[in-house]
Amino acid sequence: MDLWLIGMGTGNPEHVTLEARRALREASLVLIPRKGAGKDDLADLRHTILRACDCTARVVEFDMPVRDDALPYADRVDRWHDAIAVIWADAIAQAQLTGPVALLVWGDPGLYDSTLRIADRLTPRPRVRVVAGITALQALTAAHAIPFNTVNGAVTVTTGRRLRVHGWPVGADTIVIMLDGDCGFRTLDPDGLHIWWGAYLGMAEQVLVAGPLGQVGDRIVATRAAERARHGWIMDTYLLRRGG
Amino acid sequence: MDLWLIGMGTGNPEHVTLEARRALREASLVLIPRKGAGKDDLADLRHTILRACDCTARVVEFDMPVRDDALPYADRVDRWHDAIAVIWADAIAQAQLTGPVALLVWGDPGLYDSTLRIADRLTPRPRVRVVAGITALQALTAAHAIPFNTVNGAVTVTTGRRLRVHGWPVGADTIVIMLDGDCGFRTLDPDGLHIWWGAYLGMAEQVLVAGPLGQVGDRIVATRAAERARHGWIMDTYLLRRGG
Repeated sequence: MDLWLIGMGTGNPEHVTLEARRALREASLVLIPRKGAGKDDLADLRHTILRACDCTARVVEFDMPVRDDALPYADRVDRWHDAIAVIWADAIAQAQLTGPVALLVWGDPGLYDSTLRIADRLTPRPRVRVVAGITALQALTAAHAIPFNTVNGAVTVTTGRRLRVHGWPVGADTIVIMLDGDCGFRTLDPDGLHIWWGAYLGMAEQVLVAGPLGQVGDRIVATRAAERARHGWIMDTYLLRRGG
Repeated sequence: MDLWLIGMGTGNPEHVTLEARRALREASLVLIPRKGAGKDDLADLRHTILRACDCTARVVEFDMPVRDDALPYADRVDRWHDAIAVIWADAIAQAQLTGPVALLVWGDPGLYDSTLRIADRLTPRPRVRVVAGITALQALTAAHAIPFNTVNGAVTVTTGRRLRVHGWPVGADTIVIMLDGDCGFRTLDPDGLHIWWGAYLGMAEQVLVAGPLGQVGDRIVATRAAERARHGWIMDTYLLRRGG
């Protein structure tokens, strides 16, 4: 079985590449997750992309399982991936396939995404093809029209969880934070740090804030809370640089 | 003046996004660098993309200036950016523009690329728009069908130069090396490291090697030299992970 994991970008239907569009035209089945309250926007976006790409594949929606918050983090993620793999396997078995199965993956399938790990759980193991997509990293730097790195500089890409536990990564001059539901930048000494923050990157709802962290940090916290309340969900990311 | 920096991906003309295609259709002028011997392949690729996107803009090619290797690194890069900005300004002044100027930028304009810094040198300062593109990071992880990060793990994106000078970044479990003309992985203790290497990512010429660094490092060095001799140029990148 051929399983195609197709990066869809971060909310702008035009983030899709010509390669992704071609893949969607060649697929036989597209699986679309529904993630529950407030996230139907994202399922709708997938349907918009399928229409824009003239995808004629059969489309099957599935409900995402719920994570068991009582479990330790690693176990919780593991069990959740197991449960999603069972759902995929059922949907694929029922579809009586003639060609590839495609999944539209938020951003890029390689970057802070679970689909490759879920695909590994399927038996027999599918032939996996990854079609690269625009990530939140690029959508953020494009929206602010800033470079990701300084000249010959290194960048650490990390998570809100790690930032809160480990602090600023040793030796880094630029960091990008993914998966931060709790404004982890508040745990840093803002002195000398510049932040570029963005939510709903690439979408009509896009919101951007940039400036010295000490001056704009509180505004980002307030903006994030207000936007989340208004839309029922939020996805955001940010880049921090020493010296700015 | 509107200056649009458009990410073109890493050699597959289908890496272009629908947003990039639309921008190329709306541009009035496209500037295309010629980089001298062995790099005409890359100028030709830009023309292929323009045709595939039905771009009707005027196209002006320019010769890239030569870097002065006698200068220290930072000065050399600074002077080179100054010289490119002068060439852009001349080409734009001669074009008697009615609309936006576009540049097709290898990968993504934000990632290890100079075009944003060159644009900053233009007077009057243009309104800069960045259209995100597929980077070598994504082309590499897609080609190998591997995740960029471990679960909740951090990734350091750095350069060959930094790797040789500073060694393995403190605290990192995954690193991605850009701009390495000299196989900097040879300076590392290979014990426990796994490497995923790729050259000409996304192109018909794509070459991949992966495995424990101690087992495949020499093969990568030899493959890189042979491919470079065959094509007259090479672009490659790699990801290293502890534990693999």
